[in-house]
Amino acid sequence: MILTVTPNPALDVTYDVEHLTPHGSHRVLAVHEVAGGKGINVASVLHRLGRDVLVTGVVGGPTGDQVRADLDRRGIPHRFARSSAPTRRTTTVVGRDDGEATAFNEPGWPWPDGSWMALLDHVAGLLAERPVSVLVASGSLPPGAPDHAFADLTLLGRDAGVPVVVDGSRDALLGALAAGPDVVKPNREELLDVTHVDDPVLGAKVLQDKGARHVVVSLGADGIMAVSPTGTTVRAWLGERLRGNATGAGDSAVAALAASIARGDDWADGLADAVAWSAAAVLRPTAGDVDPDDVERLRAAVRVETLED
Amino acid sequence: MILTVTPNPALDVTYDVEHLTPHGSHRVLAVHEVAGGKGINVASVLHRLGRDVLVTGVVGGPTGDQVRADLDRRGIPHRFARSSAPTRRTTTVVGRDDGEATAFNEPGWPWPDGSWMALLDHVAGLLAERPVSVLVASGSLPPGAPDHAFADLTLLGRDAGVPVVVDGSRDALLGALAAGPDVVKPNREELLDVTHVDDPVLGAKVLQDKGARHVVVSLGADGIMAVSPTGTTVRAWLGERLRGNATGAGDSAVAALAASIARGDDWADGLADAVAWSAAAVLRPTAGDVDPDDVERLRAAVRVETLED
Repeated sequence: MILTVTPNPALDVTYDVEHLTPHGSHRVLAVHEVAGGKGINVASVLHRLGRDVLVTGVVGGPTGDQVRADLDRRGIPHRFARSSAPTRRTTTVVGRDDGEATAFNEPGWPWPDGSWMALLDHVAGLLAERPVSVLVASGSLPPGAPDHAFADLTLLGRDAGVPVVVDGSRDALLGALAAGPDVVKPNREELLDVTHVDDPVLGAKVLQDKGARHVVVSLGADGIMAVSPTGTTVRAWLGERLRGNATGAGDSAVAALAASIARGDDWADGLADAVAWSAAAVLRPTAGDVDPDDVERLRAAVRVETLED
Repeated sequence: MILTVTPNPALDVTYDVEHLTPHGSHRVLAVHEVAGGKGINVASVLHRLGRDVLVTGVVGGPTGDQVRADLDRRGIPHRFARSSAPTRRTTTVVGRDDGEATAFNEPGWPWPDGSWMALLDHVAGLLAERPVSVLVASGSLPPGAPDHAFADLTLLGRDAGVPVVVDGSRDALLGALAAGPDVVKPNREELLDVTHVDDPVLGAKVLQDKGARHVVVSLGADGIMAVSPTGTTVRAWLGERLRGNATGAGDSAVAALAASIARGDDWADGLADAVAWSAAAVLRPTAGDVDPDDVERLRAAVRVETLED
């Protein structure tokens, strides 16, 4: 079973409007509310592709109840810790005329004292009671969470003998590195942001110098670039161009990496899967969704190039 | 006591962002959540100015709980009917750079069968158990509510010997007229929308032909124009120009009219109050708020002109 940890989940609300007019007043034509947050999207993709997965993290308040109810509806298993702080929302406004999305992301309520330790205890409990093959820690941290949050989760995984994949940004990503996460997956902008290095391979090596083992950099339409602990560089990309919605593509790549590690696949195959799963997510309008047929078809179009250091 | 009925209240959510960029992704810098809906704003103004008021309407779900909790926090008495349909939200995005607001208004969930009759029973019960001086029916109707909703409330008021002020638009306004509401208060656009007559006095007479008694047309910065059942036309306006936020100005005018009727004031004085209270609302950034000192100061600057038919 793959365990995904989302410290800062969200209720993702989508408002359909006819056309977005800045400074105007809009009648909302339809409201959609789904459980969101990167770790939840990772789990959703894994579940969609038949992998055994469990969602955890922290939820609270009525929005937290809605997150849990939506996962129930989608059949995705979850075991959240509870907090007195309500789960945040994200609101995305989509114009029906042009299909363009404008997103407003709440940062989340500050965590009450002791919440982070409570989540660590909760995750340790799950690791002790279940056969977990991979632990995935994804997404943002709520205000007040410690920068070493993903490092703490990495150490929990290591103590349990479970490989850990971290998908965070900024201080959350930097704070994870000292604990030696097995895989970190920044995108190009996130890597530049923390390393100030433009070249993805050189940037990956900066993260490795700080403690990361595998570094996988997602490059959008250019696929991914991965650097292994021994310095082997693998580039994988799709031999065709896609049009669609890139939201959730990175989460789908993380899902593929976790699934590949869970099965003990060859690393280059896992990277090729990551490109295919990510591309399949682009073809779907909502984050956390892929069509298994798309995954299979796109997988055949992935090209892989390995460069020894 | 003035009873305000809001059939379609809302949790009004405000998102502060740095700058609104269409098709961009925004970090929300602050989230404010308050009870909203026109009848609630009317009650809030009355409460702020020391009048005895009771809020009613229909709430449901966690957002309904938040509406009630916010009224408790503000000290505004309420007695809502409950519904299984959750209370809607409105989301307003405000750019910190320019102060401009962009609003997204959920229409509300369709009402379950029997909800409208249940609200009428609830209001009838309140009218029977308390000394109500004026009944105010304000705002939009949820999807599926009957067009005769405000007519039903008007008849309830009449049966109880209580004057009724209706502030609705479109079908909700038109549907109220046959029951002979004591006052209707469209703004200029709402009046044009239902009468297709550009001149406010002629438009008011169209509404009177359909059953309305007093028609008060709010004209924004130009004050108000009122036509009495005997055809007397009163114009009232502020002898100075204001800058501010017109949201909630109409609700403040309705509050003044209700307060004036409750005290048995001279009608022209009530119209002058409506201009002053409305102008005081423009000076405050949030709907439902006025400063008593502003009301007093602005009241002295109101000019009134009466034209017999």
